Amino acid sequence: MRGFADEEFAARLDRAQAMMAASGLDALFLTTEPEIRYFTGYLTRFWESPTRPWYLIVPQSGKPVAVFPSIGAALMEKTWIDDIRTWSSPDPDDDGLSLLADAIAELLGSDSVIGVPSGHETHLRMPQADFMRLQSLCPGMRFCGDDGIIRRLRLIKSDAEIAKIRTACMIAGRAFDRVGEIAAEGTPLSDVFRKFQMLCLEEGADWVPYLAGGKGAMGYDDVISPASDEPLHHGEVMMLDTGIVHDGYFCDYDRNYAVGAIKPEVASAWQKLLDATAAGMEAVRPGNTAADIYRAMDRVLTGGKGGGSAGRLGHGLGMQLTEWPSFIAADETEITEGMVLTLEPGITMPDGSILVHEDDIVLTADGAIQLSAKAPQQLWVI
Amino acid sequence: MRGFADEEFAARLDRAQAMMAASGLDALFLTTEPEIRYFTGYLTRFWESPTRPWYLIVPQSGKPVAVFPSIGAALMEKTWIDDIRTWSSPDPDDDGLSLLADAIAELLGSDSVIGVPSGHETHLRMPQADFMRLQSLCPGMRFCGDDGIIRRLRLIKSDAEIAKIRTACMIAGRAFDRVGEIAAEGTPLSDVFRKFQMLCLEEGADWVPYLAGGKGAMGYDDVISPASDEPLHHGEVMMLDTGIVHDGYFCDYDRNYAVGAIKPEVASAWQKLLDATAAGMEAVRPGNTAADIYRAMDRVLTGGKGGGSAGRLGHGLGMQLTEWPSFIAADETEITEGMVLTLEPGITMPDGSILVHEDDIVLTADGAIQLSAKAPQQLWVI
Repeated sequence: MRGFADEEFAARLDRAQAMMAASGLDALFLTTEPEIRYFTGYLTRFWESPTRPWYLIVPQSGKPVAVFPSIGAALMEKTWIDDIRTWSSPDPDDDGLSLLADAIAELLGSDSVIGVPSGHETHLRMPQADFMRLQSLCPGMRFCGDDGIIRRLRLIKSDAEIAKIRTACMIAGRAFDRVGEIAAEGTPLSDVFRKFQMLCLEEGADWVPYLAGGKGAMGYDDVISPASDEPLHHGEVMMLDTGIVHDGYFCDYDRNYAVGAIKPEVASAWQKLLDATAAGMEAVRPGNTAADIYRAMDRVLTGGKGGGSAGRLGHGLGMQLTEWPSFIAADETEITEGMVLTLEPGITMPDGSILVHEDDIVLTADGAIQLSAKAPQQLWVI
Repeated sequence: MRGFADEEFAARLDRAQAMMAASGLDALFLTTEPEIRYFTGYLTRFWESPTRPWYLIVPQSGKPVAVFPSIGAALMEKTWIDDIRTWSSPDPDDDGLSLLADAIAELLGSDSVIGVPSGHETHLRMPQADFMRLQSLCPGMRFCGDDGIIRRLRLIKSDAEIAKIRTACMIAGRAFDRVGEIAAEGTPLSDVFRKFQMLCLEEGADWVPYLAGGKGAMGYDDVISPASDEPLHHGEVMMLDTGIVHDGYFCDYDRNYAVGAIKPEVASAWQKLLDATAAGMEAVRPGNTAADIYRAMDRVLTGGKGGGSAGRLGHGLGMQLTEWPSFIAADETEITEGMVLTLEPGITMPDGSILVHEDDIVLTADGAIQLSAKAPQQLWVI
């Protein structure tokens, strides 16, 4: 099934409104793609265009109200949202602001407190000048943080969300299985990237928002670079890290491949990465924190010394490629059922390069379950 | 050639610094992907991850300074930027803010004025709470708008930028030529979308950030929806609108296809769209404004009555799928050499659906030149 039943959105809204009441917020004011999609189901790749702002007001009671550019009206009307107010955007003089201020005045009391996601991993997707102007158009109202409500809501995935992430993981898994068809000694890395994206689409991805990776004698410089045209050499290791999307939900994991033969240093480092992943998975249980999972993995990787340029050993996953929490020593987020997480241990190799493994998991009532395809026992050789 | 020569970045910086001096700004403070890439060449798909903030300070003299998560250091070191200061991100307690404030204090005088892009089509890609905190960490300094400097810079493309956009357009053109291989009566629209992305990759796209479209008896509901699984029916019209990327630069244009046979209403509407495009192209010349181009196209489309849900009849194009200016009555941006633009006329059909055509052009010293592949004389039949 594509999308969600209306009941799913109603349940999300109920949870949000209970949190808003507890936090003393009269409404949430949302501007980014995942925030708006979470409450509406509005799914389009048109967010790639930065031109127009999109606004959603989630009041403490009643359904969300969309204040939307008219180009989005037809699609928004297909969602469960009833109240959609549109203007002809772009409008350099008043890009929806007076319509928005009118809606806020109509929906909320004159001394309302409006929560705007403002903490870690958030941003406001509207011009700063317009946000200042909006506040002056809403005298008496107070715009403040959202008390972490969006974060708390999205940290826990429903069964329907988990099913979509699982499908995304399976699609990527089938593409990873077929890398031998497109990559061998002599293939330029840029060819591998291009053809791997084709494999992901052929295996059922809606689209491929993310692909990074690298290659080298024992590892790679980083995990975020675009591909060079350099050919694969015998004995090198190549990594592909992908975030493909199924119905608006991501997978995010990587696979490593040895070209022609596995170097002993790479084999043993890779084994350590698998051990660290297993230790992380073992630590993913209720009562533990994100920091506990970090420590369990880091113990295997460095004996507890920490470090590494990536800055963390995994993270949340869902409507976005990366979400809260982070597997770092400073993240005390409690791990609970319904969290979808990536375990992403990395190792610095003798030549200064890095080797990184990544898997996706979910914490269920029966414990942690792997969502990404099972990694091979030995490093794949292509 | 991938990327740009250092001279290109030096020229961009020179122009920016002259504008900053004229506007009384001591520095620009940049946080988004295209803003940072424009001055550095830092190109990665890792921006898909919303977790980490990335900061670039462009002082009024001297080279830009990057304040970057350590995961980005290796890639940034490959650019022309020398001064790269990194921290281990994510850090929920201090995600680069004190490092950033220290850099600002070191680089700028204590009463400096710092420009932040704040106008139309901009946003600040960092948590709002952190932006407030940054300002309190920089006492005496004033953060204000950038006086439209980023907009003015990016409106005009260099020859090297235009060459990349041209390549992106040619790749998409070859994929559009091959749609008959993947779409026919009975093919579900979602299959067409998936396979069209594969064609774009096969023809050389680095990736396919944007694909939208639709189909129907005479047109489609909108131009931004994802694909349904509905099969193509005889006599329908189908539209694909794509933004593929070559070396960080987009194309953005569409093509319409008739399934099996062309309805007379569709044929005549489509002819009108081509006429409007030609009128727009004719109006793209120095001295005219964006509004003049809008009026030239709208005269053909509606006799000058205006309207339409899309809100405009074309826009700028470059490092992003859509950029300034907009072809609307209210946009008085003067059209000058080096602008890359899309002409995107739309028509409302007798059944209430819409039909949209789009081409990409550049204004050169010799006049407007089409960058997108030449549209066929008659609507393509598949």
